[in-house]
Amino acid sequence: MPETKSASPQAVQSYCQEHASRFEDELCELLRIESVSADSTRRGEVRKAAQWVADQFKKLGLKTELCETPGHPIVFAESPAVLGAPVVLVYGHYDVQPPDPLNEWISPAFEPTRRDGNLYARGATDDKGQMFTHVKSAEAWLKTAGALPVQLKYLIEGEEEVGSRNLDEFIEANRDRLKCDIVVVSDTSQFAPDVPAVTYGLRGIAYYELRLVGPKQDLHSGTFGGAVTNPANALVQMLSALIDERGRVQVPGFYDDVLPLTKEERQQIAELDFSEAEFMRQIGVRALSGENGFSTLERKSARPTFDINGLTSGYQGEGAKTVLPAKASAKFSFRLVPKQDPHKITQALRGALEKLLPPGITMELEEFHGAPGVVVPLDSPYMAAAARAIEKGFGRAPVYIREGGSIPVVNSFKDLLGVDTLLLGWGQNDDNTHSPNEKFSIADFHRGIRTSAWLWDELSRMKRA
Amino acid sequence: MPETKSASPQAVQSYCQEHASRFEDELCELLRIESVSADSTRRGEVRKAAQWVADQFKKLGLKTELCETPGHPIVFAESPAVLGAPVVLVYGHYDVQPPDPLNEWISPAFEPTRRDGNLYARGATDDKGQMFTHVKSAEAWLKTAGALPVQLKYLIEGEEEVGSRNLDEFIEANRDRLKCDIVVVSDTSQFAPDVPAVTYGLRGIAYYELRLVGPKQDLHSGTFGGAVTNPANALVQMLSALIDERGRVQVPGFYDDVLPLTKEERQQIAELDFSEAEFMRQIGVRALSGENGFSTLERKSARPTFDINGLTSGYQGEGAKTVLPAKASAKFSFRLVPKQDPHKITQALRGALEKLLPPGITMELEEFHGAPGVVVPLDSPYMAAAARAIEKGFGRAPVYIREGGSIPVVNSFKDLLGVDTLLLGWGQNDDNTHSPNEKFSIADFHRGIRTSAWLWDELSRMKRA
Repeated sequence: MPETKSASPQAVQSYCQEHASRFEDELCELLRIESVSADSTRRGEVRKAAQWVADQFKKLGLKTELCETPGHPIVFAESPAVLGAPVVLVYGHYDVQPPDPLNEWISPAFEPTRRDGNLYARGATDDKGQMFTHVKSAEAWLKTAGALPVQLKYLIEGEEEVGSRNLDEFIEANRDRLKCDIVVVSDTSQFAPDVPAVTYGLRGIAYYELRLVGPKQDLHSGTFGGAVTNPANALVQMLSALIDERGRVQVPGFYDDVLPLTKEERQQIAELDFSEAEFMRQIGVRALSGENGFSTLERKSARPTFDINGLTSGYQGEGAKTVLPAKASAKFSFRLVPKQDPHKITQALRGALEKLLPPGITMELEEFHGAPGVVVPLDSPYMAAAARAIEKGFGRAPVYIREGGSIPVVNSFKDLLGVDTLLLGWGQNDDNTHSPNEKFSIADFHRGIRTSAWLWDELSRMKRA
Repeated sequence: MPETKSASPQAVQSYCQEHASRFEDELCELLRIESVSADSTRRGEVRKAAQWVADQFKKLGLKTELCETPGHPIVFAESPAVLGAPVVLVYGHYDVQPPDPLNEWISPAFEPTRRDGNLYARGATDDKGQMFTHVKSAEAWLKTAGALPVQLKYLIEGEEEVGSRNLDEFIEANRDRLKCDIVVVSDTSQFAPDVPAVTYGLRGIAYYELRLVGPKQDLHSGTFGGAVTNPANALVQMLSALIDERGRVQVPGFYDDVLPLTKEERQQIAELDFSEAEFMRQIGVRALSGENGFSTLERKSARPTFDINGLTSGYQGEGAKTVLPAKASAKFSFRLVPKQDPHKITQALRGALEKLLPPGITMELEEFHGAPGVVVPLDSPYMAAAARAIEKGFGRAPVYIREGGSIPVVNSFKDLLGVDTLLLGWGQNDDNTHSPNEKFSIADFHRGIRTSAWLWDELSRMKRA
C-alpha cells in the first residue's frame, strides 16, 4: 500500500487553484456529450460519456472498469486501500435529463456557455458538474501528494434519470468490491447562495396509479348522464377523500409511524434564513397551503404529503364534448418521512380506496415505487468531518437540512451495503435541474472541488485521531 | 292555392308500399355521399349532399333554395299554403358524423349494406334516413293526391354534427319564410323495437371548463410537495364538493327552479317496459348510481345531473413522474331540466367555485354552451295528431318519453319562431349513431314514411275539425 507523500493539504488546494481553468474546460468536454439516458437514439452518446469518465479515472492511474448492464454502463474505479483510513464510496451519474423544451434555452443545451459567473448546459449541476468535483479533488491529491489519504471507490452510473433501474442489482452483485465505510454524493443543493448545507434527511415516496373503469365505452352524457356512475366523478370523489381540509392524509394509520420532528430540529429549521415571500415569488404563487400546524420549510422537507401528479379522463381537446367517459385515472404519490413504511401504506390505501369505490366502477391500483425516508445521524464522526471540510472549502459552517425529495440510491446503500450517505450539495436551488437553462455556478464548482479535497483529508484524520 | 284531389289517405299508403324498394335505393344514393361536416377535406361531398337533397325537392315541384351560409349550405323548400290547415316545418340534417374508427365497421361506412333487416351506413338513421321519410311521404301525397294536405316547409341543414353554428342566424334572418305552427323533427329513437315514442321533454345543458393555475411551472413534487398548493389536488377537492354522497348537486339554488315530475309522469315512466339488467348489460356495468330517490329512467331523462366530461393535469404518460403540476383543468356539465336557467346556474356555480378555491391557485371558468331544457305540452292538439298518426303507421300508440340529451334546435324554434317541436323518432337506441356500424331498420324506415304521410293527414284534419 502506498503512503501519501508529505505534501500538505495546502499544496492540494493550490493545485486546484492553478488548474481551475483546465478543470472547467474538461467539464465542458463532458457537458458536450449528449448523454440523455431516456433517449434511445442517443445510446451512443451515453456510452461516450461513460467512456470519457472512465478515461479520466484511468489517467489518474485508478483501477477502472466500464461495467456493462442491461442498460447503460456503470463506471467503477478505485484507488489503493489506505491503512487506517476509511474507505469512501463516491456515487454520481453521468447521464442527464432530456433537454426539452429546446426553444426555451438561451444558449444550446449541449454547448456549455459561461454567463454571469455560471456555466449553462444540461447536466452542469445534475450531476456531471457536481460529480466531477470529486474526480478533480482526487487528481489534486494524486498530483501533489502522490496518493490519496483515503481509499476512494467511484460508482458513476448512467441511468439515474431513468430510475437507476440496473443499479441495485449491480450493488448486490458487487457488495465486496463496493464495501466501504461511508458514501459521498453531491447531487443536492446548498441551502442558499453561500449557505452550504449537509442534507441529513430525505423523504421517501410511495407512488401509485389509480385506474377506474365504468361503462365499456364512452357514453353520451345526455342520454346516459345521471343513470350511470361516471368514473371521472368517482375519481375526484375518491381522491378528494384521501386528504382533509387541514391537509391531513386520510389513509388509516398513515401518521402512526411518523418520526416526529424533535424540538431541536424544529428550532434549527426555524432559524434557517428562509423568506416565504421570496419562495412564493420564485415559484410564482401568491399564497401557500398545506398541512396545518407546520411551517412551509417543515412541510416541504420533513412532513409527509399527498400530491396528485397527473389526471386523465374523457375529452381533453378544445371546446366541448358531451362524453361520459368510460374510464378515469390518476397518478399520485405520498412523500414519506422516516419510519413510515411504504408497503404498509399501500395496504391501507388499497383498503381505503376499495371502501370509497362507488357502485358500477372497477378499480386497479398500481404501485410504481416505494422507498422509505431516511435520516443520517447528525452526531456521526463522518458528519463532523464533512462539516469541517465544508467550513474550510466554503469559509463557513454548513447548515443541516432535510430535503423533500427522495434519492433512492441512499436507501440502496443503507439496505445493501449497510452504510450511511453524506449528501453534500454544491448546487443552488435555482440551478434549473430538469428544466431549460440548467446552470452551475463556476465559483461553486471550484468550491466543490476544494471542499472535496478537504473532505478526503478530514475523513483520513477521523479514524487516525 | 291548390286543393288536394279527393284521393284517399289509403292511396297515399299504397303508393308508399309500391315504391318501397325505390325509396331504399334513393336513400342509399344519399348515404353514399360522404357528407362529414367536421372534415374540411370533404367540403365538396357535403355540398353534393345538399345539392342532392335540393334536387329531391325540386323534382317534387317544391319551391327550393340552396341557401349559402359561412359554413355548409342549408336546403330550404316549401309547398304551397293550404287554406285552413297548419303550416308544418320539417327540420333535419344531411351532414353526418365522421366514420372513425374505420376498422371497426363490418361493411364500409359509405357503402350502404343491407344485413339482418337493417341498412348499415354512416347517416343511415342520423339523420339522412329519418329526414328522408318526410321527403318520401310528401312525394306519396303529391303523386296520389296531387297536393299536400298541409303546407310543408323543409329546413335541412348541413352543420348539425358540428354544433349548427350558422343555424340560429339563418332562422333569425328568415323568420317570415320559416313561419309555421309546429315543427317536426325525426332525429330521436323509439323507446324500444316496436315501441314508438313521442319525445316530449329534453334536458338542457350547461357546459364548462374550469382551469386552475398554481405555480408558474411544473415543480418537483419532492422538493416542493407539501409546501405549495397543488392545482390537481385543488381540482378534485373543488369538483367533488359540487355533488354530495346522495348525488345532489351542491351549487346553491340549483334545484330551486326544477319543474318536478308530476305523479302522472312518474307513473308513466314506471310503466315503461325497461329492464335495468338489460340496460346494465348493454353498457357493460354491474351496478348503477345517481341521485337518490329517483329511478334509473327518471335519472337519465328527467333529473338534472353533474358529469365530469374530461380531466387533464400533470403527467399522463407511462410510468411515474414526480411532478407537482402547474395547472389542472376539467370539462364538466350539468344536464338541466325545464325551468332551470343556465345563466343563473353559471352565476351560482362561479360563486361556489370561488369560495372553494384554495390559497395559491387562480381559476378561470369558461362557459361553453347553455341551453334550457324543454317540455312540449302533452295535451296539445299537435301532440294528439302525432299520436294518431303513429298509431296508424306503427300499429300501436306511442309512449311518451323524455330524453336525457339536448337538441338545441328545439330551443331555437321556441325562442326565435315561438313554436313547439314534435320529436318523432323512428330510430332505435342501438342504431350506433356516432359509432361504427350505424344502422337503420328497413322496416322502421318504411313505417316512418307511412307515419309521416299519416301525420300530414292528421295535422290537416286538426284545424278543420
